Amino acid sequence: MRRSRTGGRRARRPDGANSDGGASGASPWGGLKGGLADPFVSRLPPYDILDEGGVEAIHETSMRLLETVGIDFRNDPETLALWAQAGAQVDGDNVKIDRNLALDLVAKAPETFVQHARNPARSVTFGKNHMVFAPVFASPNVWDLDGVRREARLADFHDFLKLTQMASSLNHGGAQICEPMDIAATRRHLEVIYGHLTYSDKPFLGDPRGGGRAQDSLRMCEIVFGRDVVEKNVVLLSLVTAASPLLWDATMLAQLRFYAANGQALIITPFVMQGANTPVTMAGALAQLNAEAIAGIALAQLVRPGTPVIYGVSLATASMKSGAPQYGTSEVARMTYVIGQLARRYKLPMRVGGGRNGAMLSDATAGAQNVMTMLPAIQAQANYIIHSAGWLESSMAASFAQFIIDLDQLAILQDFAQGIDVTDEALAFEAISQTKPGGDFFSSSHTLRHYKEIFVQPMIDTGGNYEAWRDAGSQDVTHKALKLARAALEAYEPPPTDPAIDAELRAYIERRNHELPDIET
Amino acid sequence: MRRSRTGGRRARRPDGANSDGGASGASPWGGLKGGLADPFVSRLPPYDILDEGGVEAIHETSMRLLETVGIDFRNDPETLALWAQAGAQVDGDNVKIDRNLALDLVAKAPETFVQHARNPARSVTFGKNHMVFAPVFASPNVWDLDGVRREARLADFHDFLKLTQMASSLNHGGAQICEPMDIAATRRHLEVIYGHLTYSDKPFLGDPRGGGRAQDSLRMCEIVFGRDVVEKNVVLLSLVTAASPLLWDATMLAQLRFYAANGQALIITPFVMQGANTPVTMAGALAQLNAEAIAGIALAQLVRPGTPVIYGVSLATASMKSGAPQYGTSEVARMTYVIGQLARRYKLPMRVGGGRNGAMLSDATAGAQNVMTMLPAIQAQANYIIHSAGWLESSMAASFAQFIIDLDQLAILQDFAQGIDVTDEALAFEAISQTKPGGDFFSSSHTLRHYKEIFVQPMIDTGGNYEAWRDAGSQDVTHKALKLARAALEAYEPPPTDPAIDAELRAYIERRNHELPDIET
Repeated sequence: MRRSRTGGRRARRPDGANSDGGASGASPWGGLKGGLADPFVSRLPPYDILDEGGVEAIHETSMRLLETVGIDFRNDPETLALWAQAGAQVDGDNVKIDRNLALDLVAKAPETFVQHARNPARSVTFGKNHMVFAPVFASPNVWDLDGVRREARLADFHDFLKLTQMASSLNHGGAQICEPMDIAATRRHLEVIYGHLTYSDKPFLGDPRGGGRAQDSLRMCEIVFGRDVVEKNVVLLSLVTAASPLLWDATMLAQLRFYAANGQALIITPFVMQGANTPVTMAGALAQLNAEAIAGIALAQLVRPGTPVIYGVSLATASMKSGAPQYGTSEVARMTYVIGQLARRYKLPMRVGGGRNGAMLSDATAGAQNVMTMLPAIQAQANYIIHSAGWLESSMAASFAQFIIDLDQLAILQDFAQGIDVTDEALAFEAISQTKPGGDFFSSSHTLRHYKEIFVQPMIDTGGNYEAWRDAGSQDVTHKALKLARAALEAYEPPPTDPAIDAELRAYIERRNHELPDIET
Repeated sequence: MRRSRTGGRRARRPDGANSDGGASGASPWGGLKGGLADPFVSRLPPYDILDEGGVEAIHETSMRLLETVGIDFRNDPETLALWAQAGAQVDGDNVKIDRNLALDLVAKAPETFVQHARNPARSVTFGKNHMVFAPVFASPNVWDLDGVRREARLADFHDFLKLTQMASSLNHGGAQICEPMDIAATRRHLEVIYGHLTYSDKPFLGDPRGGGRAQDSLRMCEIVFGRDVVEKNVVLLSLVTAASPLLWDATMLAQLRFYAANGQALIITPFVMQGANTPVTMAGALAQLNAEAIAGIALAQLVRPGTPVIYGVSLATASMKSGAPQYGTSEVARMTYVIGQLARRYKLPMRVGGGRNGAMLSDATAGAQNVMTMLPAIQAQANYIIHSAGWLESSMAASFAQFIIDLDQLAILQDFAQGIDVTDEALAFEAISQTKPGGDFFSSSHTLRHYKEIFVQPMIDTGGNYEAWRDAGSQDVTHKALKLARAALEAYEPPPTDPAIDAELRAYIERRNHELPDIET
């Protein structure tokens, strides 16, 4: 399948992109100046690493797995009843699904959908060439604003939310960017949802876990959006994760059914540790994850036909020495492209990628592994990229420094996604013919017309010469990034929130805090 | 133009790749254990960022530039005479070249060629899907083996040569990896060529500069290879660089003519600082560099039809604030793919890419900018990638730490280039069907058959958990890399050199040291 190429079309930047000009010193649309205008679309052709035969071989293997091996939907009678009613072959927890049934259900999922934000200008579209970027989530630790590593707190989450709200390269808030470990685990989600609904006006993720968390997520949205709006529109998107291989467990299934029944959207996510919970070979891992994803997506359609879903995958390679997850591997990069090919085959939005690394510090490993994961995701035309900023230590810590560093890189990658303009004006024949051999273009009128287009000006000053850098105190990027983060937080202004709605949210939280147990039951 | 895809073919690794196994702790073919077996070929489809119309628009603009604006070949009567004789329109230094003449000449260059190494097992092929990797070159400073920054010395060059010889991901030695600043500039090239001919047995670059340097490069090769071998084979490859825009100067032209006349190979290299010496728009920069490259390649064919050439480009983006070169930009990444498309259009080997960055330290910037440059080069199917290891500070310093870090990343990228195996064995249907839902694959016989294939085991240990890292002394990657570099140097063993040949080389150097002036004349 050949997709459109960028040639001949004019590269377009998001609205407002050029207003404060690349060359004037501020980042044109990186930085901390607000939102990435919707729609943000990729102008790149997707990179098809496999030919059609390769994609079909994976598809075919997945279909054989669904038909002859089946998927276990464990301890969830309601799900098993749905499958039996649909004509699947149910045997205990095991469900064998005919490919026609599976693919007919998958075809009911929309190719694109909109997630509404409380600020309508921040609503985002998923699918086709639209791209949505969210920060890291659920890290239990932080490298804080002073560069100290410690357990994460609610105040850290608020700071990350503020930076996310300001970040020009992020158009989605994600979930709990770091875990507020100073709050009981049973009640944490209330402050997380409240934070997203007040510190930010970008769209965000509903809680996928049990214990009433999904229900609370939706109820709090009803307070802010109004019940009628929530009934008719997607205001929440939630991750549900397969317990690979070939298993969906009861907790995830309950949340899948809850969000789907309420017309909300889902990211159906096989959780791949290649070699540990999948075959060690890439094709095998892909065939398995595809079967798991198709089964989850089909189930969402059984619950409510037309449920908006994202074909999602979390990808890591397991170390064959220690079993630990490895990021930035060549396998993850290669599989990323195939997942894009599979999602396009089924006409579904797709989630993959992120700035995922195993680094302890914002070092060369962090930089290399992040780009090894992000660039393939961009070229695979991922529609949703979680973990776009702030990830360190295999997700065990969210870092304020890495967050700022990643925003800079994200702006470059988003610019990359704009392809190449080959209009006559861009080809610049006149400008070249009017410049002296061996001369320069600095004063060319063509340069004056276009210099603001190149290049993304990072917030963190790099390059230059060694002596100047040494004489300015040999500051490393971590130091520079933390300075920028602290300055940004001082400049943060919250988006407007109706005081009556805020009071209603706080009252809801207070009530739920009393109802919820201190520890998980 | 649709190229072959990787599907259906078995991913192949270089010979010896699996012999010491990824999972056993040593790197399968990263590391410091010797050579990348020839041929090293990419199994990836090239990424065509532009459609055919886009490529043709750039080609057409280049042809108009050659025909109506022309290229200046400055102060080189011999070159001008060659062009006049061929029927080009010569006016002073300016030469206007009809597209038929230019393209007929370009068609005389071979699509592939071999550069011979003194060890035949190290000879490399350029062109089609072959890939050749060389270290950084010509940095006047080093970050040394103790992490101290200072001026580069001959001893540093020798250490880099030893590491290059041992590096499993490098199959080419490049040139002066760092400049031996402790030797007079006029005589430096003698020790550089001698170093390549004795400390290493990999192929390397001839000196492209005046003052007899090119001649000395060839004479010293004659001593080692034998004059008859040098007359009939490519033993040297040399960079020649355009003085963009639209200018080739006399020094470069003299060396171009010298190497071509002697049957040696050339990398014809427009030197792009986008926005400074080219139009600020990517399409304009591409049209201009393509005209410059075509002119240089055609000239090499005029000198000697069939001269092996590489379509080379050095790419950076000029800062619109300071004019300084910027690396890892989205523009460089995007243009890289188009250069691949152009080179394939003309059926020529191509050089672009490298681990090029503006970082002062081996930090997140260095990692991200390197991969932003290297991954596109791999996907563009670059046949020669200089600066694959060791570059920092916009090339002002070669770093031993970064060298080792880059070797690790290079091994990952070379593995990436092997594409995806979709044979039935790789699809692993049986393995998946025999694994319990929610279980693991660690003890699967399929895993035991294939676990050594994944994943490249970096030399530098990253990942793991924070507490273990902290308790082991919080060592950063620079520290770990330097430790590896020092250990490798202790284990270095020189490749065999005939003492008589060595004596002849030293005698040649001694004679030339007396002949050459202390300072440039």
